[in-house]
Amino acid sequence: MSLAQRILDSDLRAAARLMRDLDDGFRSAAEEMKSLYPHTGRAFILGITGPPGAGKSTLVDQLTAAYRQRGRRVGVVAIDPTSPFTGGAILGDRIRMNRHAEDPGVFIRSLATRGHMGGLSRSTGDVVNVMDAMGMDVVIIETVGVGQDEIDIVRMAHTTVVVSVPGLGDDIQAIKAGVLEIGDLFVVNKADREGADRTARELAAMLEMKQAKPGDWQPKVLLTEASRNKGIEELVDEIEAHHGHLVNSGALERLKEERCARQFMDLLRERLFAEVYGHIHVNGRFREIVEDMAARRTDPYSAVEMIIAERFSGRQASNP
Amino acid sequence: MSLAQRILDSDLRAAARLMRDLDDGFRSAAEEMKSLYPHTGRAFILGITGPPGAGKSTLVDQLTAAYRQRGRRVGVVAIDPTSPFTGGAILGDRIRMNRHAEDPGVFIRSLATRGHMGGLSRSTGDVVNVMDAMGMDVVIIETVGVGQDEIDIVRMAHTTVVVSVPGLGDDIQAIKAGVLEIGDLFVVNKADREGADRTARELAAMLEMKQAKPGDWQPKVLLTEASRNKGIEELVDEIEAHHGHLVNSGALERLKEERCARQFMDLLRERLFAEVYGHIHVNGRFREIVEDMAARRTDPYSAVEMIIAERFSGRQASNP
Repeated sequence: MSLAQRILDSDLRAAARLMRDLDDGFRSAAEEMKSLYPHTGRAFILGITGPPGAGKSTLVDQLTAAYRQRGRRVGVVAIDPTSPFTGGAILGDRIRMNRHAEDPGVFIRSLATRGHMGGLSRSTGDVVNVMDAMGMDVVIIETVGVGQDEIDIVRMAHTTVVVSVPGLGDDIQAIKAGVLEIGDLFVVNKADREGADRTARELAAMLEMKQAKPGDWQPKVLLTEASRNKGIEELVDEIEAHHGHLVNSGALERLKEERCARQFMDLLRERLFAEVYGHIHVNGRFREIVEDMAARRTDPYSAVEMIIAERFSGRQASNP
Repeated sequence: MSLAQRILDSDLRAAARLMRDLDDGFRSAAEEMKSLYPHTGRAFILGITGPPGAGKSTLVDQLTAAYRQRGRRVGVVAIDPTSPFTGGAILGDRIRMNRHAEDPGVFIRSLATRGHMGGLSRSTGDVVNVMDAMGMDVVIIETVGVGQDEIDIVRMAHTTVVVSVPGLGDDIQAIKAGVLEIGDLFVVNKADREGADRTARELAAMLEMKQAKPGDWQPKVLLTEASRNKGIEELVDEIEAHHGHLVNSGALERLKEERCARQFMDLLRERLFAEVYGHIHVNGRFREIVEDMAARRTDPYSAVEMIIAERFSGRQASNP
């Protein structure tokens, strides 16, 4: 039986295997994805982002439990910062959500920010699609909301929850301003800490300054204490309220189309480059170009124009 | 006179104009870059990275002053986090290094992390090349060392200084572990703060655990207080020592070749995508594909294979 067929039968091990094959860039993995794609588009995609130390992992753990209690199957994609040289996930070896390990209704996958052929955004999209095809009702994407990559990833979500905590420094608040605009719901976690109410009030004030059109969703601010499971049910209710708004306003269909467009563009960018780079790497042109650039006999603009002209005219570039 | 010629004559306004043209993706800008490229490769490229709030901007300001005193011309590329929706740089409107504003030996350019056609890494490379061609002896790249994009950018540098401060939280330290491996020199800034010596000792201990081969550069830890101009001369001396090591060991030549390879690959990736996407956007294929994906009549893998097969066979894709 193909991996795709086993995944459609909810085989968690087959899903894990396909995700590894995708990471390794196996051609067979693309074929499996073709078989799975018609079965995607049903999952609700929830993005959770915020700075390091905001307690996102604990919050995701509690959300997972809350959704399980409501009878939903839950997939989790956790994006972990990577050490740029060793390639390993820095936080990846912490034990994630141990208590769901035996639950076949939960599937968790950590992705390191490096080591994905063709970009993290594409890899994350594939993992979400596999979870979607295997029948997960909710797919949660958890990222550290700092880099542009991570913000692009969280934009795949239908509903985005921005998590903050009381008492982060000013500069970090400035960076957070960037994610203010992508949040549908805002959570002040660790609400037992001093200053939680003030942080919530400040967030609410900033959100009110945004000019909303009539009928637009008005982002809300909630207080949680994830480590003690406080405020989680209210958060899930608000997430569902936002989902209802997306469905009724027609915005969900637009979001889904936008995601299709981005998935196609990400894959097109990756495959075009792989196709051409593979060719000039094997035939030695790449090495030549780099040497010529280093000696200033050519420049990158001229070299790229030459390669594109050769490839798109249908001629094969060859090494004389 | 062409922009390139004016830039070679050290015309700062011509340089600023070309950088805007590059941002706007003007075809003429690529032609100017071709003329400038033979004049690049001379500048020393210094990367400064670290978490928000570490005082990097002040440190870069003092380094600029110190290099000016040593008679060097200095270019600065400051990468600012961007608001993902408005597109503006979040920190970009703070006044950067006002005191160098009248000095023709200093050229400063802020780049927002979004809004660069084809990737921030490529844009930064172009800006560095323009500054190099206009005769800047030192080009400083300043980034917030958090996202993968920013780490890729700082890897363009010949010498990388990682800035930290006493008293950041544990999670931020974990992320910083990622940049530990890319640093040639480590600075504990705001050294008047409590815990500065301990932070410096901990950093030194972590660095000593790295297994170095004989002849390898041994990263050093320095204390600075940039706001009071303390420790800056020592830092410049160490940066020069590292540069000397790179020259003597032959590592500088390798770094320069790697940078050529990356510049070529970044531009190839961008141009291949722009070429093909532009084509299928204009002829309506892109819209069709997205609609077919949304309806699950096709999948991104099949659609990309089809487009690549059409383009590389030399046939023109046309809309029936």
